[in-house]
Amino acid sequence: MELKELYSSYEKYDGKEITIIARVRSHRQGKAVNFLVLNDGTTINDIQVVYKSEIEKYEEVSSARVSSIVEVSGKVVLTPGKPQPFEISASKIELLDQAIENYPLQKKEHSPEFLREIAHLRARTKTFQSIFRIRSAAAFAIHEFFNQNNFIYVHTPILTENDAEGAGETFVVTTRTDANYEEDFFGKKAALTVSGQLNAESFAQAFKKVYTFGPTFRAENSYTSRHAAEFWMIEPEVAFADLKDNIELIEKMVKHIVNYLFKNNMDELNFCAQNLEEGLIEKLKTIIENDFAITPYEEAIEILKKAVADGVDFEEKNIEFGLDLGTEHERYLCEVVNKKPTFVTNYPKEIKAFYMKQNEDGKTVAAVDLLVPGIGELVGGSQREDDYEKLITRCKEMNIDPEELWWYNDLRQYGYYKSAGFGLGFERLIMYVTGAANIRDVLPFPRTPKNLLF
Amino acid sequence: MELKELYSSYEKYDGKEITIIARVRSHRQGKAVNFLVLNDGTTINDIQVVYKSEIEKYEEVSSARVSSIVEVSGKVVLTPGKPQPFEISASKIELLDQAIENYPLQKKEHSPEFLREIAHLRARTKTFQSIFRIRSAAAFAIHEFFNQNNFIYVHTPILTENDAEGAGETFVVTTRTDANYEEDFFGKKAALTVSGQLNAESFAQAFKKVYTFGPTFRAENSYTSRHAAEFWMIEPEVAFADLKDNIELIEKMVKHIVNYLFKNNMDELNFCAQNLEEGLIEKLKTIIENDFAITPYEEAIEILKKAVADGVDFEEKNIEFGLDLGTEHERYLCEVVNKKPTFVTNYPKEIKAFYMKQNEDGKTVAAVDLLVPGIGELVGGSQREDDYEKLITRCKEMNIDPEELWWYNDLRQYGYYKSAGFGLGFERLIMYVTGAANIRDVLPFPRTPKNLLF
Repeated sequence: MELKELYSSYEKYDGKEITIIARVRSHRQGKAVNFLVLNDGTTINDIQVVYKSEIEKYEEVSSARVSSIVEVSGKVVLTPGKPQPFEISASKIELLDQAIENYPLQKKEHSPEFLREIAHLRARTKTFQSIFRIRSAAAFAIHEFFNQNNFIYVHTPILTENDAEGAGETFVVTTRTDANYEEDFFGKKAALTVSGQLNAESFAQAFKKVYTFGPTFRAENSYTSRHAAEFWMIEPEVAFADLKDNIELIEKMVKHIVNYLFKNNMDELNFCAQNLEEGLIEKLKTIIENDFAITPYEEAIEILKKAVADGVDFEEKNIEFGLDLGTEHERYLCEVVNKKPTFVTNYPKEIKAFYMKQNEDGKTVAAVDLLVPGIGELVGGSQREDDYEKLITRCKEMNIDPEELWWYNDLRQYGYYKSAGFGLGFERLIMYVTGAANIRDVLPFPRTPKNLLF
Repeated sequence: MELKELYSSYEKYDGKEITIIARVRSHRQGKAVNFLVLNDGTTINDIQVVYKSEIEKYEEVSSARVSSIVEVSGKVVLTPGKPQPFEISASKIELLDQAIENYPLQKKEHSPEFLREIAHLRARTKTFQSIFRIRSAAAFAIHEFFNQNNFIYVHTPILTENDAEGAGETFVVTTRTDANYEEDFFGKKAALTVSGQLNAESFAQAFKKVYTFGPTFRAENSYTSRHAAEFWMIEPEVAFADLKDNIELIEKMVKHIVNYLFKNNMDELNFCAQNLEEGLIEKLKTIIENDFAITPYEEAIEILKKAVADGVDFEEKNIEFGLDLGTEHERYLCEVVNKKPTFVTNYPKEIKAFYMKQNEDGKTVAAVDLLVPGIGELVGGSQREDDYEKLITRCKEMNIDPEELWWYNDLRQYGYYKSAGFGLGFERLIMYVTGAANIRDVLPFPRTPKNLLF
C-alpha cells in the first residue's frame, strides 16, 4: 500500500499486517532493535520500521544503505506520545535494490547551491518534496478554477514570429547554423514566445473566457534570484469584460489557489513555514481573509510622496507621475499603507504596453497590478484597447509595425466589445506560497544563463 | 447572462426578461419581424432573437452586420415544435460594436484550408468551437485523472541538451547568428525537447507517480496530415511499477478521458459526429464499454502472417519478427482481429528505445503500444531498464554516449526498483475523439514547415 493512504487512516490499520515498498531515508542499529526510516514519495511524512535480528535475511537487510528500495511487511503499531503517530513492526523485509555507497544525498544538511547541481535527486529531500508538491497542487487548483468558471484552456503557440509587446529578449529557434532564416524551417525567423496573450485574445473573441497555461521564455542574461530563461505563465482573457471584471477575477483566482492549498497541502505548507519562511501561514491567511484594496496609481504616487516627506527611506525617492514603481514602493503600499493585497490601477500609458486601453484622461491606461505583502507585484493585467485607430496609432508611437500584428489589430474591426486579461508568473506564485527565495528552487530543472544541465 | 446558463435551464426563464451580450452570427429581415442569430462563445448553441420595427433605434439595430456585438434585453419564449427550444422576443437592442463589411467569416461553407489562413477567427465556427472545446475538456480530464490518482504534475524543461532517445530532428535554440554555441546563452548547444520522459523518470523516483503535460517539438520536414513541429504530450511515469501496471494505467486513463467527454461535451461530440466523422459516438463507446485486448508482439506477427496467407492485401506483406508494425497492421489487429482497443506488448528490442527493459528472452523489451480502431497507435510506453550495466551497454550499442546521460543512468545506482511509463500525443488523441482528419485542425495555431503565422 501507499504511505499516503496509510498516513491518512493509520488508526484503521492499528494492529493489522500491511506491506509497503519504499526508499530508505535512514537506517540505524539500536541496542535491541534496528530502525529503518522509509518514504515512498506519496507523502512528505516518513514512516519508521522497527525490526529485530530474528528477521529472515537479517544480514542482507541490515546492510541496506540510504536510498535503497525495500519491501516491508509488518504490523501497524500506534505510538501515542512519540513524535510519529505510528510505526511498523516488521515481520519480513526484502532488500529489492541496494544503493551504491556514495549516494550524494546522505542524511545531513545540504546547501541549495549543492542541491541545484543534483536536480535529478533533490526532489527526494523534504524541502523539494514540499515545494514540488505545492507546485503541482497549485497548477491543478488553477485548472480547476478556470474549468469551474467555464473558461476554455487554449494552448497558444510556443514558436512565434512576434514578441508580444516588443519587450523582452527572445531566443531564436532554427535548424540552420548560418542565420539564413529565409531558408530556415519556417521560411522566416522564429522565436520562443514571451507571452501567449495576443493569441489568447483572439480566442476570447470566440469563447468569451479563455486561459493559457504554458512555458514562456526570456533570453535575458540576468543572474538574479528572480529570473529564469524558461518559466510558466497563466494568462486568462475575457471578452465583454472591463478593468473591474478583471480585478474581480484576479482576486477570486488568487483566493481559490490559496484556499486549495490550505485544504490539500497543509503538511507541505507547514514544512515550508518551518524551514523556508517564518510566518508563511499567516501571510497566506491575509490573502484569503481580506478583500483586496484598490489604489489608483495617481493616489499611490501621492501616498509615496508623503511617505518620502515623512522620512521613509526609499532607494528611489524621486516620486513623480510617470515613475515605474519599484518593489520597495509596491511593498510599502501593500504592507505599510493598506496592510493587505492591493490592486494599483490606471498607470501612465508611457510605462505600459501598446495594447492597453487608453483612459479618457489622455494620460493613463486601464492597467492593473496586484501587489502582495512580502513580494510586491504578483499579477499584471489590463483592459485592452478596443478602438482600432487608437491601437494602430499607439503601435506606431511605440515603434511597433502594425503590419506585423495585422491579425491582432484586425480583431477590433470584426465586432469587438471590451476584453480584459492578466498574466500570472507561475514561479512567482510558487515562490510566494512556499517562501522559496530563489526561482531556481521552484523550477524542477531551472534554465538560467550557462545552465542547461539535465 | 451567459448563453450556456440560459441553455442549460431555459425552462426556468420562460416568460422572464433577460439581458445578453453576444456576437451576431446571422441577421435577416422577415416580413413582420427580424431575426438575429447570436452566440456569446459560452456554448456551441446559438440563440435566436426576434425583434420588430417598433424597437428603439430600429435603423441602427437593423444595420448590424455579421460579427457585430449586440446587447439584447427581452423575454424568453419557449418554442415547442421548432428546431430551437426557445427564442428571445427583444424589447431593447443595443449595437455595441459594428463589424466592418468584409468580415471573412460570412455565413457559408468554408474549406479547412481557407480557415487555417484565418486561425485568429476560425475558432468562431461551430466546427472549431466543438474541436477546441473538446481539446480543453480533454486537457482538464487528464489533469483531473492524475490528480485523483495522486500523481504529481511536473513541468519538465523545454530547453534541453539531450534529445531523449537519439530519435527525432531537434530545433536549435540560440541567441547568436554564428552557431558558436560555446559563447551562447547556455554555453553549449541547446535544443527544444522532444520528450520530457527522462526528467520525469527522475521525479518518479522521488514522488512515485508523476506526469508531464507540455509542448514538445520535432524539426521534421513532414507535410503530412499527422505531423506538426509543435505539439503537446502527456507522459506519466510510475516507480515500483511494471508493464502490467502500465497497461492498467493506460486503459484507466483513456477510459477516464472518454467518459469525461461523454459526461460534459455531448453537444460538441454530436456536432463532430454529424460533421467530421460518421459513427464517432459508436467508435468512442467501444473504448469505454470493452476491456482492452492484449496481444504479445510475437503472437501479432503470427496473426498477420496468417492474414497475408489468407489473402489480406497489406502494402507491407513481408511479415517477420523485427517488423515495425505499420498503421495498416495495427488497424487490422484492433479492428478486424480483436474488434476493440488492443495492447501489443514485448516488441523486438531493435525497433525500440535504449531505455526499455530487456526481457529474459534476450530479444524483446517490455514495451507496450495501445492500438485503437480507426487510427492505430495512440499510446506508446514501456517498463524501463533497471539494470545499470545493461542500460550502459544498450546505450553504446545504439550509439548514444552514456556520459551525456550520466544523471539519467545514475538513477539506477541509487536504489531503483522498477519504473514504467508511457507517452500520449495529445493532438493524436484530439483527432481521435473529434474525428478531425488533419492535425492542423486540432492545434489552435499549428506550426508546420513554412507556417509560423499568428
